[in-house]
Amino acid sequence: MKKILDNLITLSGWEIIEKGYDKSGVIISGSNFMTGNGYLGYRGTAAEEGKEDYAGCFVTDTWDKADGKWEELCNVPNALFTEIYCDDIKLSPKKATVNEYQRKLNLKNGVTSISFIMEPVQFSEEKFASLFNIHIIPQKITIKTDRKTKLKVVEGIDADVWNLNGNHLKEIKFGNIDDMLYAESITCEKAQTIAVLSKTVISNIDLSNSPIEEKAYKYTRTVEFETDANQEITIIKYMICYHSNNVKNPLEHCLADSKNLNYNDLRKLNDKIWEENWRRYDIEINGNIQDELAVRYNTYQSIIATPIHDSLPVGARGLSCQAYQGAAFWDQEIFNLPMYLFTNPEVAKKMLIYRYNTLDGARRKAKRLGYEGAYYAWISGKTGDELCPDFFFKDVITGRPIRNHFNDWQIHITPDIAYSIWQYYELTDDYEFLRDYGAEIIFECARFLSSHVVYKPRKDRYEFVKIQGPDEYHENVENNAFTNYQAYFNFEKALRTIEILSDNDLDKISKKINLLEWEIKLFKEIYRKLYLPQPNEEGVIEQFDHYFMLEDVVPASKIKERLIRDDEYYGWPNGVALFTQSIKQADIIQLFFVHPELFEIDIIKANYEYYESRTLHFSSLSPSVYSIIASRTGHIDEAYKNFVKSVYIDLKNTNEAISGGTFIGGIHTAASGAAWQMIVKGFAGFKIQNEQIYLDPVLPEEWKSISFNLFLDGNTYQIIIDRKEMKIQFEKRNEKYSKLIVKDTLYALNTGKTIIPF
Amino acid sequence: MKKILDNLITLSGWEIIEKGYDKSGVIISGSNFMTGNGYLGYRGTAAEEGKEDYAGCFVTDTWDKADGKWEELCNVPNALFTEIYCDDIKLSPKKATVNEYQRKLNLKNGVTSISFIMEPVQFSEEKFASLFNIHIIPQKITIKTDRKTKLKVVEGIDADVWNLNGNHLKEIKFGNIDDMLYAESITCEKAQTIAVLSKTVISNIDLSNSPIEEKAYKYTRTVEFETDANQEITIIKYMICYHSNNVKNPLEHCLADSKNLNYNDLRKLNDKIWEENWRRYDIEINGNIQDELAVRYNTYQSIIATPIHDSLPVGARGLSCQAYQGAAFWDQEIFNLPMYLFTNPEVAKKMLIYRYNTLDGARRKAKRLGYEGAYYAWISGKTGDELCPDFFFKDVITGRPIRNHFNDWQIHITPDIAYSIWQYYELTDDYEFLRDYGAEIIFECARFLSSHVVYKPRKDRYEFVKIQGPDEYHENVENNAFTNYQAYFNFEKALRTIEILSDNDLDKISKKINLLEWEIKLFKEIYRKLYLPQPNEEGVIEQFDHYFMLEDVVPASKIKERLIRDDEYYGWPNGVALFTQSIKQADIIQLFFVHPELFEIDIIKANYEYYESRTLHFSSLSPSVYSIIASRTGHIDEAYKNFVKSVYIDLKNTNEAISGGTFIGGIHTAASGAAWQMIVKGFAGFKIQNEQIYLDPVLPEEWKSISFNLFLDGNTYQIIIDRKEMKIQFEKRNEKYSKLIVKDTLYALNTGKTIIPF
Repeated sequence: MKKILDNLITLSGWEIIEKGYDKSGVIISGSNFMTGNGYLGYRGTAAEEGKEDYAGCFVTDTWDKADGKWEELCNVPNALFTEIYCDDIKLSPKKATVNEYQRKLNLKNGVTSISFIMEPVQFSEEKFASLFNIHIIPQKITIKTDRKTKLKVVEGIDADVWNLNGNHLKEIKFGNIDDMLYAESITCEKAQTIAVLSKTVISNIDLSNSPIEEKAYKYTRTVEFETDANQEITIIKYMICYHSNNVKNPLEHCLADSKNLNYNDLRKLNDKIWEENWRRYDIEINGNIQDELAVRYNTYQSIIATPIHDSLPVGARGLSCQAYQGAAFWDQEIFNLPMYLFTNPEVAKKMLIYRYNTLDGARRKAKRLGYEGAYYAWISGKTGDELCPDFFFKDVITGRPIRNHFNDWQIHITPDIAYSIWQYYELTDDYEFLRDYGAEIIFECARFLSSHVVYKPRKDRYEFVKIQGPDEYHENVENNAFTNYQAYFNFEKALRTIEILSDNDLDKISKKINLLEWEIKLFKEIYRKLYLPQPNEEGVIEQFDHYFMLEDVVPASKIKERLIRDDEYYGWPNGVALFTQSIKQADIIQLFFVHPELFEIDIIKANYEYYESRTLHFSSLSPSVYSIIASRTGHIDEAYKNFVKSVYIDLKNTNEAISGGTFIGGIHTAASGAAWQMIVKGFAGFKIQNEQIYLDPVLPEEWKSISFNLFLDGNTYQIIIDRKEMKIQFEKRNEKYSKLIVKDTLYALNTGKTIIPF
Repeated sequence: MKKILDNLITLSGWEIIEKGYDKSGVIISGSNFMTGNGYLGYRGTAAEEGKEDYAGCFVTDTWDKADGKWEELCNVPNALFTEIYCDDIKLSPKKATVNEYQRKLNLKNGVTSISFIMEPVQFSEEKFASLFNIHIIPQKITIKTDRKTKLKVVEGIDADVWNLNGNHLKEIKFGNIDDMLYAESITCEKAQTIAVLSKTVISNIDLSNSPIEEKAYKYTRTVEFETDANQEITIIKYMICYHSNNVKNPLEHCLADSKNLNYNDLRKLNDKIWEENWRRYDIEINGNIQDELAVRYNTYQSIIATPIHDSLPVGARGLSCQAYQGAAFWDQEIFNLPMYLFTNPEVAKKMLIYRYNTLDGARRKAKRLGYEGAYYAWISGKTGDELCPDFFFKDVITGRPIRNHFNDWQIHITPDIAYSIWQYYELTDDYEFLRDYGAEIIFECARFLSSHVVYKPRKDRYEFVKIQGPDEYHENVENNAFTNYQAYFNFEKALRTIEILSDNDLDKISKKINLLEWEIKLFKEIYRKLYLPQPNEEGVIEQFDHYFMLEDVVPASKIKERLIRDDEYYGWPNGVALFTQSIKQADIIQLFFVHPELFEIDIIKANYEYYESRTLHFSSLSPSVYSIIASRTGHIDEAYKNFVKSVYIDLKNTNEAISGGTFIGGIHTAASGAAWQMIVKGFAGFKIQNEQIYLDPVLPEEWKSISFNLFLDGNTYQIIIDRKEMKIQFEKRNEKYSKLIVKDTLYALNTGKTIIPF
């Protein structure tokens, strides 16, 4: 048994167990113990819990705006709702004492469960979002009493759900058919139909005569019966959910899926798919079971947040709640996609096709703001139209909303997507993808950038003005280095794509998007003359023009003393960080993360050392990037410290759930995706450059060894690194990635060969 | 007798009289009744008053920064300080009852006086800032009692002065010589020496034996004597002030000037110079004595704010207090200079030479902010270095300073100065001025603009981004139309100057400032392709890009309801006006004011009608501009309404003295300068275009006639306009301005000819 927190342990490194019910922690536990499948996310709450306990089942592709401001995913009616009364006393984990209660999430198969004892009852429940049929969540409750009791089960659908910004479901229509209960409702803004169905089996009890009633947005059946001593009662429920964005008649689909359901069969099928997942994605860490658990936990959250059934966004909080609107940020490409890219490129491809499908939304955004091409949404839902409201945070002191400019000044999202397209193409040589999807995106991104960039005639160079880099506390800056470099690569790749595409294919795409000769010339001109901030004499690159002239507060955290209220927003337009060099998150450092080849290690080191102490790490995207760069620059202790910061963000609940009056809690999906990268790109030092595999391993002190799999060019490579040596194992030899470079030494890649890199 | 306010009257239209002492109004009355001469401004307070009564004598060219933030003029020790005790009771206007007290400012000769009765004493005092010797303020106190009394006079120097931002004077050294008292002090930041001297004559009393003492920053002599019934006692004091920015040894100069002083002689010399002033600048308004008084009052304030003795700035609050730092804004060129341009061009030239003398400061500002050429200071003192602090206002709710961008984004000040240079040159044909001063300014301004402007390659045009127009509530905008047009004219005039200058002169100037061929080409290129926002279908020009997309609140004043506190700042970064179309002051309308020839009257009218209801008029620069344009567009009632708003700003104290926590009270010198323009450019419709005089008179209902003088090409023209006809009288006929256009009809200009324009 290994402790993560006082009340949080793991046994084998495959499960997290919460000991003792803590009412104040339910908003966290609900996210942390959730189950999901990329289509829906069901929070790790008990069957009897409701909105006051932050119960919720968030379903992708149900975006709706109820308050005229925040478009968010619906929390659908909870069809697993079950209250059990034993001799008229309600069973509830809230009443169990610490030792008798445990909540558990099994990462191996995504089963989340709760068990407790409330004399004379031993209660346990478990559920999982099926990976086999993503519309179903099977739930099993088992009750055992050591004496004869009178049991009452009130079960059905609870439509009185938790929402962040307004009620999304109206015209809730409850009904029952063949002893199953259902609820159909219409979404507030877009009038989508959402149907949930509850199918229940209680041991061998006939439910057909049990009374059903509708009351206060709940539609429930009450079943009463007596139990013998030591009799085990099983209540199995299946929640099935469809909505009209998937299918024409959601309720009919629910009903169709309700036939021939078997809990154990569904469990087995689910277990099997999870087994396959872990074969691809698992990382073993020998020597520290908590860290191993934490990485797995993050990978688990990353997987269940990814809608591999469709081309839909990976939400910045996955499907754990409505925060960040169930929508994709740049996190998707930069933090979540790389694990798939190197282990399951088909999923990466699907994620990128989502960006292709949302090109029109990005075009609309560009046009609306006076630009051309594709300006990707900062917060992107199904259509790619911008979901980020103009006023994101508020001034908690005056109560006035703040006009944040995430949605109109943070342009780097666009070249970040072009970058990922290229990452995928370069790794896979998937010409068809480039032709059918990638080229158009890259061109439209370059087109947008060419409509945003400005030329300074006296400097004879192109610049980006009035933009916002990854460090969101400093809005409205000039030449954010990260943005300028990303834009530069976008133009480079656009020109490269033109070379790669066959004349015929280029011609077709050019015609489709009306790409003209003068535009290509303009891309070349901008590529040639775009201002790329260079390291200064100390080797440090200025984050944006005049950044070095800002007040220098070291360490950054000292600015906390200037807060008037703890919950106020630090950034634009008048927060405590704005006029200082204190930055929210990795910005320049992010550049070395996405382009490890760009600068010599001395420069990276100088920048790491300058910016680390000026970074507040108030974004969950920050520690992982610093960890990876610290691994590269020989700051192993700091690499591990930031690794820990990142992988335990959710498990240890280290980040603020509310900022500037806006709820931003839930699972930090980018950090989830970053866990894999911190091991593989960070500690193992993996990168691909010029079709060669690079590894440059360093291990934190406590770790004995790590091992993980890469899937490159149709081949699985197992990498095992211990404190003395490393080994790569694979089945067949590849043409493309046949060379390995470890710490500047070139090796021919042979399976099983042992290399001593230290 | 005509009332202006209940306690404010005029008799002849040449004086303002305040009846009844009002403690709460002293900060206003002190400014309104002040005397001055462009070198110093002495507030209209009583001789016994001190800092708590906002007494003050502000001297130009004494800029000093005591608090590390605000550079402001010094309030020098008050050498007119005089307390009088009658039978041990102090005489004070505060103790006089309403009917027995009056404060008076005689505009005819700049004498400010106070008189009151405090039984048994009849008290009166008067003083004036000498125009003959600008270092001297003579003061005469007369006391008469109807019975025998014991009088005690405590007089000398009060160095405990009122300051807005820190004490500027340190090491105050008091002393006396030849029965005269003096104070020498050193300024806090720049270590300038300031000397004041007090010379006193009390009837025929010998002062040599009176005790002198120093106490609490006061250095006083006490003189005691008895008076007979009905004896008149006269206390004459001369305050003399010099500082080390003028002369090497200020005290010596004070002493030199103290010889042979005679109050009556100084008065006579002063009266004579004022008489000459009024011959040039006076406007007669027949039919409304208050309005006539008000215009005169504004002209008076404009004159005493103008340092014609030197090339120094006209302060935005003149020399009435320390607000706005005794420094020049664009107000100087656009609001104050035109009266001089058309009546006394030598003064206008001096004002422009001030801008020439501060070119280096403007160059330093440009360089510091990453630009080239001359970026004139938003708040300009002696050197032209930027005096505007980064944090001008504060958020009164949170107490946090606000980073206003007057000092780095409000670029139109630069082309505004080039514009005035051209106005002067065009009117006077003063080639020597253009060669020796103007050309260099115009080139350096164009150079700055060419380093700020950006080229948008896909639009094939130049734009200005991240700027701030005259409407300061909307900082950080693109293509503020006023700015773009002013920049356009700057480039035009730069190119025109190149044509006008002789090859030799151009060569010399080019060499001096290293103006190269490619730069001139660039000026041409920008001139050709600069984006000039055009009227939309309704004829309205958008104030800046996307302005029309902002929330439309009509009338603008409705946004007041959104205030949390009355004294909060309305603008950037989160004030109530920022996200609405409510604007602080004339912006587009300002464009028609400076370029009346630019658009047809229909366009001007459409813009007037659109923007008037969206303007808050929260700048004292706003109503006058609207008045002038309203005169042109046939909105005579509104023209008069805004004229009234502008000319009574100070007399009726209509504007806020504090905004966003910063004191901005005192005389609104721009409005003072605008009074003349509202009559001449507004109601009389005067402009010069293509060397022709245009007049297009309209008169407010109550006015019977107006008359004023213009001084063009060495010739004085008297213009008399009544409700039926107009007449121009002059001595000799000019070549240059020999044609007159009145309402589209061309007239040969003959003296005394009557034209019926209506």
